[in-house]
Amino acid sequence: MLSHGASDSADLAISDSGTAALISVASAVDLRIPTTMQALVKARPEAGAELREVPVPSPGPGEILIRLEAVSLCGTDLHIYRWDDWAQSRMGTYLPRIFGHEMAGRVVAHGPGTGAVPLGTRVAAETHLVDWTCYQCRTGREHVCANLRILGVDADGAFAEYMTLPERNAWPSEGLAPEIAALQEPMGNAVFATFVEEITTASVAILGCGPIGLMAVAICKFAGAGRVFATDIMPHRREMAAALGADCVIDGAGDVVAEIRRETGGTGVDVVLEMSGAEAAIHQAFQMTTNGGRISLLGLPSRPVTLDLNNDIIFRGVRVYGITGRELWRTWYKTAALLREGLNVAPIITHRLPLSRYADAFDLLSQGVAGKVVLLPSEV
Amino acid sequence: MLSHGASDSADLAISDSGTAALISVASAVDLRIPTTMQALVKARPEAGAELREVPVPSPGPGEILIRLEAVSLCGTDLHIYRWDDWAQSRMGTYLPRIFGHEMAGRVVAHGPGTGAVPLGTRVAAETHLVDWTCYQCRTGREHVCANLRILGVDADGAFAEYMTLPERNAWPSEGLAPEIAALQEPMGNAVFATFVEEITTASVAILGCGPIGLMAVAICKFAGAGRVFATDIMPHRREMAAALGADCVIDGAGDVVAEIRRETGGTGVDVVLEMSGAEAAIHQAFQMTTNGGRISLLGLPSRPVTLDLNNDIIFRGVRVYGITGRELWRTWYKTAALLREGLNVAPIITHRLPLSRYADAFDLLSQGVAGKVVLLPSEV
Amino acid sequence: MLSHGASDSADLAISDSGTAALISVASAVDLRIPTTMQALVKARPEAGAELREVPVPSPGPGEILIRLEAVSLCGTDLHIYRWDDWAQSRMGTYLPRIFGHEMAGRVVAHGPGTGAVPLGTRVAAETHLVDWTCYQCRTGREHVCANLRILGVDADGAFAEYMTLPERNAWPSEGLAPEIAALQEPMGNAVFATFVEEITTASVAILGCGPIGLMAVAICKFAGAGRVFATDIMPHRREMAAALGADCVIDGAGDVVAEIRRETGGTGVDVVLEMSGAEAAIHQAFQMTTNGGRISLLGLPSRPVTLDLNNDIIFRGVRVYGITGRELWRTWYKTAALLREGLNVAPIITHRLPLSRYADAFDLLSQGVAGKVVLLPSEV
Amino acid sequence: MLSHGASDSADLAISDSGTAALISVASAVDLRIPTTMQALVKARPEAGAELREVPVPSPGPGEILIRLEAVSLCGTDLHIYRWDDWAQSRMGTYLPRIFGHEMAGRVVAHGPGTGAVPLGTRVAAETHLVDWTCYQCRTGREHVCANLRILGVDADGAFAEYMTLPERNAWPSEGLAPEIAALQEPMGNAVFATFVEEITTASVAILGCGPIGLMAVAICKFAGAGRVFATDIMPHRREMAAALGADCVIDGAGDVVAEIRRETGGTGVDVVLEMSGAEAAIHQAFQMTTNGGRISLLGLPSRPVTLDLNNDIIFRGVRVYGITGRELWRTWYKTAALLREGLNVAPIITHRLPLSRYADAFDLLSQGVAGKVVLLPSEV
Repeated sequence: MLSHGASDSADLAISDSGTAALISVASAVDLRIPTTMQALVKARPEAGAELREVPVPSPGPGEILIRLEAVSLCGTDLHIYRWDDWAQSRMGTYLPRIFGHEMAGRVVAHGPGTGAVPLGTRVAAETHLVDWTCYQCRTGREHVCANLRILGVDADGAFAEYMTLPERNAWPSEGLAPEIAALQEPMGNAVFATFVEEITTASVAILGCGPIGLMAVAICKFAGAGRVFATDIMPHRREMAAALGADCVIDGAGDVVAEIRRETGGTGVDVVLEMSGAEAAIHQAFQMTTNGGRISLLGLPSRPVTLDLNNDIIFRGVRVYGITGRELWRTWYKTAALLREGLNVAPIITHRLPLSRYADAFDLLSQGVAGKVVLLPSEV
Repeated sequence: MLSHGASDSADLAISDSGTAALISVASAVDLRIPTTMQALVKARPEAGAELREVPVPSPGPGEILIRLEAVSLCGTDLHIYRWDDWAQSRMGTYLPRIFGHEMAGRVVAHGPGTGAVPLGTRVAAETHLVDWTCYQCRTGREHVCANLRILGVDADGAFAEYMTLPERNAWPSEGLAPEIAALQEPMGNAVFATFVEEITTASVAILGCGPIGLMAVAICKFAGAGRVFATDIMPHRREMAAALGADCVIDGAGDVVAEIRRETGGTGVDVVLEMSGAEAAIHQAFQMTTNGGRISLLGLPSRPVTLDLNNDIIFRGVRVYGITGRELWRTWYKTAALLREGLNVAPIITHRLPLSRYADAFDLLSQGVAGKVVLLPSEV
Repeated sequence: MLSHGASDSADLAISDSGTAALISVASAVDLRIPTTMQALVKARPEAGAELREVPVPSPGPGEILIRLEAVSLCGTDLHIYRWDDWAQSRMGTYLPRIFGHEMAGRVVAHGPGTGAVPLGTRVAAETHLVDWTCYQCRTGREHVCANLRILGVDADGAFAEYMTLPERNAWPSEGLAPEIAALQEPMGNAVFATFVEEITTASVAILGCGPIGLMAVAICKFAGAGRVFATDIMPHRREMAAALGADCVIDGAGDVVAEIRRETGGTGVDVVLEMSGAEAAIHQAFQMTTNGGRISLLGLPSRPVTLDLNNDIIFRGVRVYGITGRELWRTWYKTAALLREGLNVAPIITHRLPLSRYADAFDLLSQGVAGKVVLLPSEV
Repeated sequence: MLSHGASDSADLAISDSGTAALISVASAVDLRIPTTMQALVKARPEAGAELREVPVPSPGPGEILIRLEAVSLCGTDLHIYRWDDWAQSRMGTYLPRIFGHEMAGRVVAHGPGTGAVPLGTRVAAETHLVDWTCYQCRTGREHVCANLRILGVDADGAFAEYMTLPERNAWPSEGLAPEIAALQEPMGNAVFATFVEEITTASVAILGCGPIGLMAVAICKFAGAGRVFATDIMPHRREMAAALGADCVIDGAGDVVAEIRRETGGTGVDVVLEMSGAEAAIHQAFQMTTNGGRISLLGLPSRPVTLDLNNDIIFRGVRVYGITGRELWRTWYKTAALLREGLNVAPIITHRLPLSRYADAFDLLSQGVAGKVVLLPSEV
């Protein structure tokens, strides 16, 4: 069931921030909140989704209400839209559900016990809803919380005009355009994968040039990586990688390992960022890494992969990092700093559409021809 | 061809160390070197080996000559003895070859350009013969040298009365009994795998209680690890693990993951040291690691392993370390310090035999009933 | 002003934990709360303190009320008691103030918005009251929060029968005796200083054998450190260090550097834990560290120290760590694990006194003859 | 005494590299070696130096002979030239001595036991002559070797037409211009100081804009650091820092701490690179670092410095790194990669002079108006 309370604006516990500076932010924002809103709902256990008129949710204890400005599409959203095997097993019991999670919007109401983030503030969401109290959360590893819930999967998400969010999950993003603010979430994946060890001067291969891979290309170059190789099986993605600064782009369907070995004088690359999830690329990853190098695994293969552990990992002395989510909040600080210092990820956004054109958006994503597709709920 | 020069003691470039202390060491050692010696030779491409009378080798530039005191058997030696698929593909073109590599002995002659390690010094061998000049060797990763050769595989080894060794590969080991000095090499594997990240207070599961796994149990307890679990399918090995301090031993054929999850309140262990190479254990390793934990892979599976990368590594945010050899010389310093501070690995040695009883030694190893088996070349 | 509300037990927002297990804990604890209590108050800007009858405080939002069981004395408490220069400048505007902070006690009431830690639970306190939202707190460095407040200094503390504490600062400590639970706070200082880098097999010098130094001795030995040296100018403290396992104790007034250099074959020690704050010891620290080693500075010198940065730090390539507080909650997990695995710090507690004998307790501390002195508020 | 053998080219053990590629390098280089050469000799214990005709040295075992192409001046050279207190105490017993060490040149002869670096190869020198066998050298810390000797101080150096160098100290630098190749040595100081922890996105203050500080500015920007502050008391150096990319340059004589605190919203900088050695700057360094930040100390103060350890280091939880030399060879790989990827340090070189104009070179250095001054021995 959708847990939408029958709220209206008069019911909301709206506090103000108590300082002149914050009031001035808020005063520029329309804090009037309607009773109902448009939302993209995964309502039935089948392909597709429905744009419905639903009640605006009411922020509970510790939550804030956000008016959404931009929500970009993630591969996970496509899984849900298509209702593939993964989506069925992961979300079968949750319907109806508002999905979507890569978001930016403005705080328009405070639930009980909140107020640290002032009304009117533009925020992005850390989409890992964690318990803050487990062993992982109390030892700096919130991103792998033992009781992890995901926004837009385990709780209603952002393909809507309004959404609620735990205030502790809000990342203030004043100074960024909404679509760039929204992009911080997937960019955080790329940042985490890239900087799990130092990257400057390291030779790097980025396997898979979807949006996260493309952002990784830009990040690596910005951080002064050594030679940056990028692979993909689709020519237009390789072109985007080259445009973002990749030193050498390679067709992922060719003999990638041989080419990278040749280009590195036989040594292989110091770092592999596996961002495709393609089985062939995963095998390439292990074979192109220099002895004692490291691999960040981020792309999700659709089925188990058979590895020659002896020759791929053990005799090579490589380090393999499983990458999921982003570190709270080290990765966000790093991501924000990269954007502030001039890293430009805007070219990765290829399409902007109103929320009502969600079907076109998912078509673009399906065809693999788009970079990042952004829905604009305020233009519903 | 065995590259044994027709040397005799008069031909050797014997230098002395130039200090009274070192002369006194040397004076206690018989530096007379015979012309021929007994050596266990892998002579033909079939199971078995032959004890032959061969010339004592002559140390070339940069090499020292060592009179062997103790040589322990490694799983690799058993592969060579049995002449299995791995041995055939790895060593087919090298026969005849003196094998064996976990050694201790005394320096009895200096080749040209050597002398840093005085005559008479007891040494153990770093068995990775590295080029010292490649990218890996020049960045602190000699153990994965791009041009790695292995003592007793790519060069004549230690199942003999005498052997040559690059002086840079010698680790002075005065103060240790010969069989303990020899044990430093495999113990170094355990030390490297254990300390790739800090171990104190971490909960640890050690999968496989062969000699290296057993040493890891003792090392973890010595270093103040938290709860130490040890698994093996053979009861007598589990008993040895318990005797060496494991807090909880588990039959590797049972539901190891469920038991460790239960014993850790559902959390899983911080660290897994996979030392069996068994496919089932490798699967257990990934399933019992706590989110954000780490796994050291050291055991060599006999064939590729199919992994659910999403649930085993990526969503869990684990770190996987391929462990081979030992770090030069950080691991050796650490190993020597552990022994000096009182870590007792002697119980792991279950059998001591003269070199002539090599067939019995390999039988013991084959049956899996032995801990470490040591051959004593001086009792040939 | 002391911010004691005029509460009584009926006013408190007591929630129950909702599970049978937790109820059973609570049921064994007397949750009746009186209106007033005995508390040791620093009331006037002069040496000494007064045991007063004051209102039992009421837990505000996010706070819990704790009935105190054990509170140990810290050097900071002695500064406050004596009202020395530091105390005057640090606390002059805060009087009257209940001081004391190394505590253990049971949760007896929940303020608004709390309840994660069930009633009846024995807890210790993280005494750094942090803002949880600054740059430091959001990047895993809460212990150096930009807006740090200290329990018993910036807020009323634990020399009393009851105290309030932010629930997020409570560390559940069931299974530990109250005085050991209280000791976790200073032990955390020792743990943090020791494990800022791996300690196993490292040679260590611990300068200053007050309670924290003594705990560091025990911790280092438990963690399999190499040779452990301990220095102090007081013979009975050196004896305690030896009893706790120090391999070599040295009179801090002698030529400590020469002796440690001699004992280490000229190399110096890998690690120095400076826990005295004595100027002479700080100089020794830098001179006894091996090239490329590390120093943890924890002891607080009473005035600035003149260092030969070239020869002490730069040419030696040493790393110097400023140590304050403890990492939240990595250090606490580590501390708890050490205690659980058998590290015995009980011998460091030399005196147990009822709260009413606070003057005797401070006398013992002043004379430097005590190890740790613990006050027992429930025996007031 | 200068240890110049009476060699001529016929005496040299010239080996060839044995491959066509290497022969072709060598064939382009004039391998004829004269009997005598011009060299700048510190001959007497007083200010100044003398250009003398001395024998060309002969490479001993493990050494190569190099024909020098470019040698840049270091602050150490100025100390020696001026014969100040430091120089007198450090080098008093070594005269006469050829000094100079930041060099590039071509290998023209091989001493016994060498040959890994082919004749004709352009090389730079790691100027730390280490023993390769001590505890430090065997644990990845060669730069703080227990028996460290410095080229041009403890052994004859590079202000000459020819010099000998242990082959293990040669860093092949084909593809770099001689003056850039020579600059790798001081640039290595900057690289080591900068990357002792990751720098990307960190806010950085670089104190002191001499050549090493200027290179640090360029390196930090290349590596995608966050805001980069640079301070110096001399306007033209601040201008050079700004030209190399510093985001904000500050007069070191002003209230640097206040300005940096203001510019960082009160937070302070994540990283301080102290490269001036000025006492005032060292104090600033500690006061401008954010809590939990880090400081690299590289500049050498001329006398001891009095630090408020409590407020500068301990309560702030900062990490202080003593930086000397460079890591062998991690730093060199990193330095070479930065140059290869396009980092341009050429603007830092302000003067190029023949060796015979050494007096002018030292005058430029004394006046503090120069960036890097390079002597060209081949234009003697």
